[in-house]
Amino acid sequence: MTEVTRILARYLVGSKPDDVPAEVRREATRSLLNWLGCAVGGSVHPTLDIALKALRPFMGAPQATMLGRADRLDVFHAALLNGISSHVFDFDDTHLKTIIHPAGPVASAILALAEHRPVSGRDFLHAFILGVEAECRIGNAVYPAHYDIGWHITGTAGVFGAAAAAGKLLGLDEQQMTYALGIAGTQSSGFREMFGTMCKSFHPGRAAQNGLTAAFLAKEGFTSSNRVLEAQRGFAHVMSTARDFKEITENLGKTFEIALNTYKPFACGIVIHPSIDGCAQIRAENGVKAEDIASIALKVHPLVLELTGKKTPQTGLEGKFSVYHSAAVAIIHGRAGEEEYSDAVVRDPRVITLRDKVTATADPSVHEDAAHITVTLTNGKVIEKHVAHAIGSLKRPMSDADLEAKFHHLVDPVTGKPQAVKLIKLARDVETLADVGEIARAGAVKQREAAVG
Amino acid sequence: MTEVTRILARYLVGSKPDDVPAEVRREATRSLLNWLGCAVGGSVHPTLDIALKALRPFMGAPQATMLGRADRLDVFHAALLNGISSHVFDFDDTHLKTIIHPAGPVASAILALAEHRPVSGRDFLHAFILGVEAECRIGNAVYPAHYDIGWHITGTAGVFGAAAAAGKLLGLDEQQMTYALGIAGTQSSGFREMFGTMCKSFHPGRAAQNGLTAAFLAKEGFTSSNRVLEAQRGFAHVMSTARDFKEITENLGKTFEIALNTYKPFACGIVIHPSIDGCAQIRAENGVKAEDIASIALKVHPLVLELTGKKTPQTGLEGKFSVYHSAAVAIIHGRAGEEEYSDAVVRDPRVITLRDKVTATADPSVHEDAAHITVTLTNGKVIEKHVAHAIGSLKRPMSDADLEAKFHHLVDPVTGKPQAVKLIKLARDVETLADVGEIARAGAVKQREAAVG
Repeated sequence: MTEVTRILARYLVGSKPDDVPAEVRREATRSLLNWLGCAVGGSVHPTLDIALKALRPFMGAPQATMLGRADRLDVFHAALLNGISSHVFDFDDTHLKTIIHPAGPVASAILALAEHRPVSGRDFLHAFILGVEAECRIGNAVYPAHYDIGWHITGTAGVFGAAAAAGKLLGLDEQQMTYALGIAGTQSSGFREMFGTMCKSFHPGRAAQNGLTAAFLAKEGFTSSNRVLEAQRGFAHVMSTARDFKEITENLGKTFEIALNTYKPFACGIVIHPSIDGCAQIRAENGVKAEDIASIALKVHPLVLELTGKKTPQTGLEGKFSVYHSAAVAIIHGRAGEEEYSDAVVRDPRVITLRDKVTATADPSVHEDAAHITVTLTNGKVIEKHVAHAIGSLKRPMSDADLEAKFHHLVDPVTGKPQAVKLIKLARDVETLADVGEIARAGAVKQREAAVG
Repeated sequence: MTEVTRILARYLVGSKPDDVPAEVRREATRSLLNWLGCAVGGSVHPTLDIALKALRPFMGAPQATMLGRADRLDVFHAALLNGISSHVFDFDDTHLKTIIHPAGPVASAILALAEHRPVSGRDFLHAFILGVEAECRIGNAVYPAHYDIGWHITGTAGVFGAAAAAGKLLGLDEQQMTYALGIAGTQSSGFREMFGTMCKSFHPGRAAQNGLTAAFLAKEGFTSSNRVLEAQRGFAHVMSTARDFKEITENLGKTFEIALNTYKPFACGIVIHPSIDGCAQIRAENGVKAEDIASIALKVHPLVLELTGKKTPQTGLEGKFSVYHSAAVAIIHGRAGEEEYSDAVVRDPRVITLRDKVTATADPSVHEDAAHITVTLTNGKVIEKHVAHAIGSLKRPMSDADLEAKFHHLVDPVTGKPQAVKLIKLARDVETLADVGEIARAGAVKQREAAVG
């Protein structure tokens, strides 16, 4: 296969906002809103305090907003820090074909860029769509072999997406865009071994920063290979054992990967979502209380127990890997947001008592997206619930109202509710903005303590 | 194999300057001198102009010297730019067991750091030795499989070396050093596809910057895996098809990889070095002139023609891939430095005329390190020269005087000779310096134009 990289670059350079169908732009707006909520919400995580403390002495002029904070950082560091915070709760979006979390590397790069070089919301959204397109197509070409080897695909593919989107906003020509993809690709990195550590969210952050750097370098004439994707010693051969370049080159401009984006309703691994969904529905429909429950029996896909079978989690993070804890909080709190995975909730005696009444059985006939739940009350009554497709899946996407509720859940504690309402409006209306930097500036918090109080 | 990363981290943290034998420290001093000459000399390359122009708007406070320039950059960007310039002429050092160019990622990181946190020359040289140790041992563990896949090992292993050396100077404890290696490793990257483009020298620069970043993050408590090297989804399994962890864990503190470092006498691929060496010797011993030569016949290892068989190079860069051009300039100029690979010299009619009289025959019985040269003069006289081991090889290392001549050749045009003399003295006496930042500051050029004139 010849010219894979150049074909992609040519498409990225030639595409115009009007070439993208309205429903694709609508999904992109939803992706942007979800990313923004995750990034503002995640900004309070200790990972960000540590990164700021370590890197601040070396930062440049205050050019761009760090979302959820009072800090203004240079463009590269704003891309890095916002990229980290958007993924730090593991609560962001998912391109289910590749399990790439697409928005993080791309939006973090270009929102920072937009404060340095003002751009209209329409051009911004278009660049965002193109960045996600490059990222997910490159992911499609090497998934699952690339992921199975141990690469964290959000980082490895994300760096291309960030370069593509930033390169589009910088007005790169075809040769410069080809080189930008090359400079980005030769920085492609991130091991799955890092899952469960601060390095996991570092990956999309660094991908945003490195892709952005690649675009700026290419703009000034920094040279690279013309064949980073397809060359024998380039990305798809070096970093994967299998590859299909047609995933990159065919139907460009006709299909859009961002239309396949999904959003997590719950702040944990996607395999537990059907069980949480079902338990929350039982609570809502039957008004059951934890104290009235004798047992909860889950029938789930085998992966659920393999990945999230922790019976007695001790910390909030461990709670994310416990289908038992997750089912219990869904009954007690009716949701499984970041708060329900705090240390305090994991150690709450009421939660522990209910958690210990949960059993789970692996059944290969149950789809990954499904769960069957049987709640037996102390009075002998039995409530059954079958979830065919969990909320947040492609078959049952989160509604706009769901996304706004999730946004408020994440953002209100950081900015206060009025600012969250303003941010939602700006993100929803992004295509009407003359200067998209307005979104970034509206995501700053003058003094976090005051806003939280 | 368990605890590979931790064993390495423990060694790095526990090692003391006095634990390193004097002859190893002496070779480290030579490596430092060679690196410094390459970085100052390379600073005039257009790659650096482009990188500076692209990145300057985002740089932080002027904390550290960019060698060979008037610019002072933040520590991260100084590490990046000095790392690029030290490799941009492909004239730096070589750890022959892995073809890692060891000094670039390590020295570039810690010389920048030394201007931010002053350190004695003795501690600096010790950290340099340890960084090269980590880098080359990790390279030994995966070479050649890792390189054969297509990874540019100077970048992929270099990032560990930079983190190890910077972590040592930051006084990391064992856990922090383990995490620093993890944060570095998950940024390990760089494709061989980039050879022949500006991205090649970008690799050691980015490795320096990323390893340094990893050390600063780890110092503030950023977490990572404890097993980046040995985990199933970590470096040695994800980025190589074969691995031998004993290369990392055995004989720590007993053997030193920097003792195996070599320095290039000629500014081109190492396979042509025996031919250049032989031709330069014939010139020196016989005083032959280009005009008196009827033919030059080279008998060389087959790799020479495979890698450097370009008969009619058109540019300086192409000249580096021509054994014919290289032999011609060795006869005419007596050397093959960066100048002899300029566009002007490649297009010099006198060089072209002689180049066209050169023939080369591949002979598998000739060692990679050897060449047999037959010069026939127009008067019928025949001069033969057998080079058993090229100058610059482990068997025939460059003398201190050779290294100083190379240094002057690279540095004098940039700083003027007096400053080059001062730099050599500082590097030679590095272990006596109270503040090693003195070397960096002596490598700055107030106004390059003035110095060049």
